[in-house]
Amino acid sequence: MLQEETVVPNTYKGSKLKVFSLNANPELAQEIVENLGTELGKCSVKKFSDGEIQINIEESVRGCDVFVIQPTSEPVNQSIMELLIMIDALKRASVKCINVVIPYYAYARQDRKAQPREPITAKLIANLIQKAGADRVITMDLHAPQTQGFFNIPVDQLLAMPILAQYLLTKDFANDVVVVAPDHGSTTRARELADRLKAPIAIIDKRGSREIGEKREVNIVGNIEGKTAIIIDDIIDTAYRVTTATKALLDNGAKEVYACCTHPVLSEMAIENISESHIKELIVTNSIPLTEEKKISKITQLTIAPLLSDAISRVYEQKPVSVLFK
Amino acid sequence: MLQEETVVPNTYKGSKLKVFSLNANPELAQEIVENLGTELGKCSVKKFSDGEIQINIEESVRGCDVFVIQPTSEPVNQSIMELLIMIDALKRASVKCINVVIPYYAYARQDRKAQPREPITAKLIANLIQKAGADRVITMDLHAPQTQGFFNIPVDQLLAMPILAQYLLTKDFANDVVVVAPDHGSTTRARELADRLKAPIAIIDKRGSREIGEKREVNIVGNIEGKTAIIIDDIIDTAYRVTTATKALLDNGAKEVYACCTHPVLSEMAIENISESHIKELIVTNSIPLTEEKKISKITQLTIAPLLSDAISRVYEQKPVSVLFK
Amino acid sequence: MLQEETVVPNTYKGSKLKVFSLNANPELAQEIVENLGTELGKCSVKKFSDGEIQINIEESVRGCDVFVIQPTSEPVNQSIMELLIMIDALKRASVKCINVVIPYYAYARQDRKAQPREPITAKLIANLIQKAGADRVITMDLHAPQTQGFFNIPVDQLLAMPILAQYLLTKDFANDVVVVAPDHGSTTRARELADRLKAPIAIIDKRGSREIGEKREVNIVGNIEGKTAIIIDDIIDTAYRVTTATKALLDNGAKEVYACCTHPVLSEMAIENISESHIKELIVTNSIPLTEEKKISKITQLTIAPLLSDAISRVYEQKPVSVLFK
Amino acid sequence: MLQEETVVPNTYKGSKLKVFSLNANPELAQEIVENLGTELGKCSVKKFSDGEIQINIEESVRGCDVFVIQPTSEPVNQSIMELLIMIDALKRASVKCINVVIPYYAYARQDRKAQPREPITAKLIANLIQKAGADRVITMDLHAPQTQGFFNIPVDQLLAMPILAQYLLTKDFANDVVVVAPDHGSTTRARELADRLKAPIAIIDKRGSREIGEKREVNIVGNIEGKTAIIIDDIIDTAYRVTTATKALLDNGAKEVYACCTHPVLSEMAIENISESHIKELIVTNSIPLTEEKKISKITQLTIAPLLSDAISRVYEQKPVSVLFK
Amino acid sequence: MLQEETVVPNTYKGSKLKVFSLNANPELAQEIVENLGTELGKCSVKKFSDGEIQINIEESVRGCDVFVIQPTSEPVNQSIMELLIMIDALKRASVKCINVVIPYYAYARQDRKAQPREPITAKLIANLIQKAGADRVITMDLHAPQTQGFFNIPVDQLLAMPILAQYLLTKDFANDVVVVAPDHGSTTRARELADRLKAPIAIIDKRGSREIGEKREVNIVGNIEGKTAIIIDDIIDTAYRVTTATKALLDNGAKEVYACCTHPVLSEMAIENISESHIKELIVTNSIPLTEEKKISKITQLTIAPLLSDAISRVYEQKPVSVLFK
Amino acid sequence: MLQEETVVPNTYKGSKLKVFSLNANPELAQEIVENLGTELGKCSVKKFSDGEIQINIEESVRGCDVFVIQPTSEPVNQSIMELLIMIDALKRASVKCINVVIPYYAYARQDRKAQPREPITAKLIANLIQKAGADRVITMDLHAPQTQGFFNIPVDQLLAMPILAQYLLTKDFANDVVVVAPDHGSTTRARELADRLKAPIAIIDKRGSREIGEKREVNIVGNIEGKTAIIIDDIIDTAYRVTTATKALLDNGAKEVYACCTHPVLSEMAIENISESHIKELIVTNSIPLTEEKKISKITQLTIAPLLSDAISRVYEQKPVSVLFK
Repeated sequence: MLQEETVVPNTYKGSKLKVFSLNANPELAQEIVENLGTELGKCSVKKFSDGEIQINIEESVRGCDVFVIQPTSEPVNQSIMELLIMIDALKRASVKCINVVIPYYAYARQDRKAQPREPITAKLIANLIQKAGADRVITMDLHAPQTQGFFNIPVDQLLAMPILAQYLLTKDFANDVVVVAPDHGSTTRARELADRLKAPIAIIDKRGSREIGEKREVNIVGNIEGKTAIIIDDIIDTAYRVTTATKALLDNGAKEVYACCTHPVLSEMAIENISESHIKELIVTNSIPLTEEKKISKITQLTIAPLLSDAISRVYEQKPVSVLFK
Repeated sequence: MLQEETVVPNTYKGSKLKVFSLNANPELAQEIVENLGTELGKCSVKKFSDGEIQINIEESVRGCDVFVIQPTSEPVNQSIMELLIMIDALKRASVKCINVVIPYYAYARQDRKAQPREPITAKLIANLIQKAGADRVITMDLHAPQTQGFFNIPVDQLLAMPILAQYLLTKDFANDVVVVAPDHGSTTRARELADRLKAPIAIIDKRGSREIGEKREVNIVGNIEGKTAIIIDDIIDTAYRVTTATKALLDNGAKEVYACCTHPVLSEMAIENISESHIKELIVTNSIPLTEEKKISKITQLTIAPLLSDAISRVYEQKPVSVLFK
Repeated sequence: MLQEETVVPNTYKGSKLKVFSLNANPELAQEIVENLGTELGKCSVKKFSDGEIQINIEESVRGCDVFVIQPTSEPVNQSIMELLIMIDALKRASVKCINVVIPYYAYARQDRKAQPREPITAKLIANLIQKAGADRVITMDLHAPQTQGFFNIPVDQLLAMPILAQYLLTKDFANDVVVVAPDHGSTTRARELADRLKAPIAIIDKRGSREIGEKREVNIVGNIEGKTAIIIDDIIDTAYRVTTATKALLDNGAKEVYACCTHPVLSEMAIENISESHIKELIVTNSIPLTEEKKISKITQLTIAPLLSDAISRVYEQKPVSVLFK
Repeated sequence: MLQEETVVPNTYKGSKLKVFSLNANPELAQEIVENLGTELGKCSVKKFSDGEIQINIEESVRGCDVFVIQPTSEPVNQSIMELLIMIDALKRASVKCINVVIPYYAYARQDRKAQPREPITAKLIANLIQKAGADRVITMDLHAPQTQGFFNIPVDQLLAMPILAQYLLTKDFANDVVVVAPDHGSTTRARELADRLKAPIAIIDKRGSREIGEKREVNIVGNIEGKTAIIIDDIIDTAYRVTTATKALLDNGAKEVYACCTHPVLSEMAIENISESHIKELIVTNSIPLTEEKKISKITQLTIAPLLSDAISRVYEQKPVSVLFK
Repeated sequence: MLQEETVVPNTYKGSKLKVFSLNANPELAQEIVENLGTELGKCSVKKFSDGEIQINIEESVRGCDVFVIQPTSEPVNQSIMELLIMIDALKRASVKCINVVIPYYAYARQDRKAQPREPITAKLIANLIQKAGADRVITMDLHAPQTQGFFNIPVDQLLAMPILAQYLLTKDFANDVVVVAPDHGSTTRARELADRLKAPIAIIDKRGSREIGEKREVNIVGNIEGKTAIIIDDIIDTAYRVTTATKALLDNGAKEVYACCTHPVLSEMAIENISESHIKELIVTNSIPLTEEKKISKITQLTIAPLLSDAISRVYEQKPVSVLFK
Repeated sequence: MLQEETVVPNTYKGSKLKVFSLNANPELAQEIVENLGTELGKCSVKKFSDGEIQINIEESVRGCDVFVIQPTSEPVNQSIMELLIMIDALKRASVKCINVVIPYYAYARQDRKAQPREPITAKLIANLIQKAGADRVITMDLHAPQTQGFFNIPVDQLLAMPILAQYLLTKDFANDVVVVAPDHGSTTRARELADRLKAPIAIIDKRGSREIGEKREVNIVGNIEGKTAIIIDDIIDTAYRVTTATKALLDNGAKEVYACCTHPVLSEMAIENISESHIKELIVTNSIPLTEEKKISKITQLTIAPLLSDAISRVYEQKPVSVLFK
């Protein structure tokens, strides 16, 4: 067994499978290539003093099946431009196939015209990625599953839910559990986690005007009293929503509150908000890396590297990826 | 005043604004042109005995701003093909602009890969409409708002919610009202109606396996006891969901149940199901026409023609359409 | 020999060659895969009660060379939509190559603007097939050979003429034979069959206005007296043309009349017309299936399955297909 | 009247309608602008000593509706390149609309794969014209009407048939007239002329192998004895076909032979062949200019300039062009 | 006169001409709209705490001719993304025409593959701008004029040379003048300025390996002794090149050194380098704004606003822009 | 060794690598296939008497990696059309990959809008080649390296500089050498050659108006006295520039003048100009063939066939081509 395990890591060294990392999440990329038994492709991604990015691919990629690992996380616009420039370079370098691995897809929440004359930036990004020359996208937990349809190329959307659920199931909670959707749009996601935990759901229901400055009334629909509430979201950004939800749940009788999400954007005051809140534990994945300041004890980070390396291997080997969606 | 009213209807006769109807909803198209004070463009849309469609545009359209009214309702595939062929004919006839008015957008529910190797047919349809040559889409209450982003051309999505809410507000219900989402994905829509009715919401929560044959447990999240429940959905198709929801609501203590939706697909056993159910009234729009058999007393049909003709006039006059989204 | 025959049928089982059938002609598809020694790919193509089509591909196709068998015959628009949706599904499922096999290409007669403001639907369909994502088309006896040029992707057009001629040559006609073009546009086709049968040609020549309601004078150009006349057409639809031609030929002295065509559309009153006519035998292919009511004794149906399976095998093996055009 | 006539020619001077001529047929272009009461747009189209073309547009065209007159006649490839380069220049000069007027469309006979691995050059040319940036094509008597469908932009195909027929009707032939198709593919065209002349048709029927070197047997299908035969073709190139047809007709009893065509390509030995033949008169149009050597007494050239200037005016004025197809 | 001048500034208020500024150079945009006698279009361009940009267009733009002012200067990638998102928003808001005004085009120096497997980022940016939906580009002094050809849409490239030359001519230099190209690629630009100043040229000629770490020998080709040297470049970035050139010129006998460029990128140590150098004066334009720290006394900034507003007015009025290229 | 050498030439016979030549440079193509140990693919490229080109590919190419050798040299427009038609034929014949090898790229000097309303023909050609269906371009010494960016497909640009420099280094010149740029735009190219020859550079500097008829003053910037001057250019066309430069150099004290270029267009009076000039030797490559009249003793032609065959082999074998750029 052990022998096979040590042998496997060397499988893709010297093959036509090449994995490159840009600057957004090199740790994740490193973990992935270690799982694949290979090394990261050599390239330099520099930022000039004038703000322009320069990319040099430093090994031959002609005829290769290339995977580029780049969540489009902060600095968002630079991450996107790095990705687009890299795709252009690979296309002109005569690779066989350009697969972009975007564990976190920025601008995913700008996926419709919520107001008149708004852009649909999530679609724009999809158009740009395709125009640059990508052949396939591997991503994870898109804010809306419809975003897959923004592409005309194949999109393999992986799910963090099994990883999150598996971790939560090891907790063996003392109280009854209820899964909580922190807003109306998250109800389906809450039900999916609840099915895995065999639990009921509740919804944080905010009423009234969305005008800035106006206070919206917060209700809880569903029974949470005396229970362990687990809030589920896809993205936690400023953490304002999850911490107000936590407060509302505890105010209304919940015993304790856990939270989990796939993408820990954690911008602005997020870490401070979480530290000060009564969330017992926040479970996230490493689709976006946590800086040292963000690695606080309340946050548990689960790795998605095995899932991504499995997907990459399956795509390269032309085996079905669908088994990973379970 | 009256004089002005009789004058207005004649405004667009002889102008470069042309409205054509295909076979899916000629009554709605007729109502629209009457509002616009013009007549339907002359064209014949025949089906040959071998099943092929033949379209002849029977008046000059060169340089015109053309609007084609065609919900892609039953027979769905023929309605879509009629629309695509008409667009091709208009494009080759040197019109200035092809605006397609699709009050009901079929295949809207196939908007993501729910299973491995599934098509994203809603995106395919968007691609086909654009490839055929459409310049703009006017539609109403897409199943998911992200479907707008399937297009690269401008999409004006109108909303039936104000029309439905306005009608419900005239009801002056005796009991407290609760708006009910018939499944997890409808929670946001329920909240929007609830805000207009100043009411709380509840959700029909089905748990467990979606495997065929397995029975899913039905719960109601939220308080409905003694209330008038109003189920809101975008599409009512077989009416299975709305009638089982009705039963569950009544079983759990609701006083009475109303239902409303934008698009009355009402296929298969829908009319029978609704007739036999305890729904007090089902309110729908005329985005899809009701055949005579479907015009039962329980169903109230509200017209969207004024909204559509206003939108068409604004697009033609290059005035903002956004005021109609309120 | 026998052994080899039993071995050959198993050749493509387990290979990267996958053949799928949609709903238009499953018998032909079955015959093709038997010739190829494999089985049809697993997929379900359902029609929901609201008229929408749902396709599920039920086996892995990643990296495969896929052939989809679908003449776009009645119900024409549904057949086209099935094909387009299937292409979308395959594209998103990361197949290597999508080959669509369309033995009968509907709308082929709408291939030019015969009237002002007409669509060119045959081109529209070509655009849609390409936009959906097809990589190659295999078809048979297009109404006009120029239709190949409607595509930018490779089109392999197979010919039924050798199959029809070979059958007719076995007849050993007692009388002199003349091949008859049933209208002006069929003269080239008539000459091609006549060359194979070493026979002269004649043309049914209708004069005068094409306005509806006006009667056109029918002449026969060429000598048919005392001969066995063989009418050749690409499509027989209502059979009005072939039966009036038969009558004219017999009235003008032909001894007997046979007819042949590639595509037996046979819509509306076709079967009744043929039954009542004095056509001795109508020879067709199975590019379009005959329903039980259409299988009358006067009609002989020849199979194109060996030709199609040979073409599929050659495309897959990257051997020249041109030898099949002879 | 006279006054109005002198006024009309000045209509389009100073308007946004601009007509440019390249090098293929400046006489026709000049005649067109005189009809339109304007002058040719100023541009220079030079050929450098190294064979490259250089085009300079020497007046402002920003926001104009531009028509470029260029049959793609000899030198064919240079005419095509001139057209494409001019389109590129106009596109980059911010014109409103690029209309290309191609009275003779070269490569029109390469419109299908007649042999394996052949190009479909007529489609390629259509793709190139569109890719360069043309918005509309005005052309005349395409070899196959399906060629319209090679374009996705509007194509207005004008017909020379009425001009040819009107001239022939003035002849008042002493004998009965028969219209003759010089090959199988021309039968429809012959019938159209015959309808206008109220005459029967006949076909030159060549049998047997098309292999080079093998002699094909020539028959005449239809009755021509003692009649005035009028051969109709779209293009007369080497004149080999029309002169052998003439000989066959006279050998088989025709009284006299006229010929007509739209496009007088007249390459190689054509003029010598025609001079030596027994054709009484060959009627052609000026879609292609005749060099001085080609202006022999047997050839009558009819002008299409009024038809083209009418079409240009109608396109510019957004009036229907269809009336010109009659 | 005065009256007319006060009237002119109000010309475009209330017209279909709308000018929007994003975040890169609002001062320039403000100056432009003042010249045009109108106001900036209302829109908000925010950056969320997670780094995503959100754009809201706050007035109706339907049917308008929109000009977006956005040099893609620091922060480069954000400026580009702002521009692309704005284009997407305008496209979906049904404007008539999207003109992007990019006085400084970032990544212009990455316009070819200088090394194997390099991207051509200047082309990528052009592709992205077109894919997003721009209809026309107005820019200034592209690093290589070939970059115009990266676009398929019209590009109007304005020139700062006349503005720079006019300023220099007012100087009335005491000594003979020589225009100096700071590297081989700038020789043509130096000659153009020299022609306007009626002066000779010289070139800074660096020999030998470009490998990092190796020192390249600096020569001056041409006679500079005792002269006033004027270095001309398109972009001054780190100012390393211009300051080493200055030193070399003075070391080799030049009397004094001026420098000028169109685009003052001035990144990193540029201001310090310039301050410490013996450059007498550096003349730049306001294509890129200077922050307060960069506004040192040695730098003179000339405005391009009149040129840009003239160009915008001419494009809108469909008058030739070419007069501005002189 | 010898054996291996005789074995190597047979390597690609029977493989999926096919090389075709069109009419522009069959000698070069022949040399290339001999280096590759294979034979030219069979095809006929005829010109009909009417000027149209007909191409027949006379062997199966299905699934092959095809390389088409065609510099677009005189007759330029025909060479381009041959190339485009060949690409169309190959695309429709289901090849795997179409690589076009264009050692000399015509219209390369029309790469920007030098005057208002000019085309950018070099970009147009790039668009046409891509639209026709090419997958990759191999070319040599483009006039401006930015032309690579006109393509979205991979372009491998080979360099003749090493071949020219290697030849010059064998000369062992008696005098000091100076490399001369014949105009401002060639300075970079001159520096590159000078680096290989370890020599200084000089520039021919023409001042003043470019208006036709006006005489421009010619200066030499840099020291050439008593030296062997080597003029370097990419293209020598009429040879007017190189011969006037030669005269100016000798007049100003150069000892002797050599010239070299990659592409010997040599149109019009070029050969006469060169014969009569005092150029000692003109060194060129065979990117363009020399007709017999052009093979004068002053001209030395070096072959690029080994470089091209090496590039083709590397592309086919998916090995890096970059080593050839050195």
